[in-house]
Amino acid sequence: MFDPATLRFDAAGLLPAIAQDAESGEVLMLAWMNAESVARTLETGRVTYWSRSRRAFWVKGETSGHVQELVEMRLDCDRDCLLVLVRQTGPACHTGRRSCFYTAIRDGAETEIMAPIA
Amino acid sequence: MFDPATLRFDAAGLLPAIAQDAESGEVLMLAWMNAESVARTLETGRVTYWSRSRRAFWVKGETSGHVQELVEMRLDCDRDCLLVLVRQTGPACHTGRRSCFYTAIRDGAETEIMAPIA
Repeated sequence: MFDPATLRFDAAGLLPAIAQDAESGEVLMLAWMNAESVARTLETGRVTYWSRSRRAFWVKGETSGHVQELVEMRLDCDRDCLLVLVRQTGPACHTGRRSCFYTAIRDGAETEIMAPIA
Repeated sequence: MFDPATLRFDAAGLLPAIAQDAESGEVLMLAWMNAESVARTLETGRVTYWSRSRRAFWVKGETSGHVQELVEMRLDCDRDCLLVLVRQTGPACHTGRRSCFYTAIRDGAETEIMAPIA
């Protein structure tokens, strides 16, 4: 059985988790998980990060309703990063955009490429 | 003009950069960049990370030939993470697999879902 403790966490006990839309392939966001976040995500099927600012578990969408349902969790070759394939309800970004990566560098300038959907 | 110094780096002066295949949408890897890596990537069009283990710039594919040609760089809402859309030559992973995320958690166990291509 997979044991989250076998992942490689940083000095703060965290690793980056990339959320990707399981259907479209769009990269939605990056947030952080500790071992317990990983375990809770797998157990509940609700993607659960660790909020570094609030120092608390963060069940994505718990207050906003913009939940991430886990489709599959993957780990990388170094075991220090996760890719989380999700079914995203509504926007993933707190700004109301589908993805947090809505700013592109084009012709050397920041360009907004995505409008809020909610 | 975009100034890499306006990004939010961690205490080590780094931020995570997600490399995504610009055509297929496959997430290939996650590595780290400092401000100079970001600048070099934009200037040269060759994705250039900072190797935390070697403490040196890491022009992806410089020795292996498995280069990443920059298609577009995007930043997230918090300005502390990058999404780099690339044209990947050969495997992105040092194990010879297209992506570093070749291990999935399925039925509670680690499952290899991708074979080496080179």
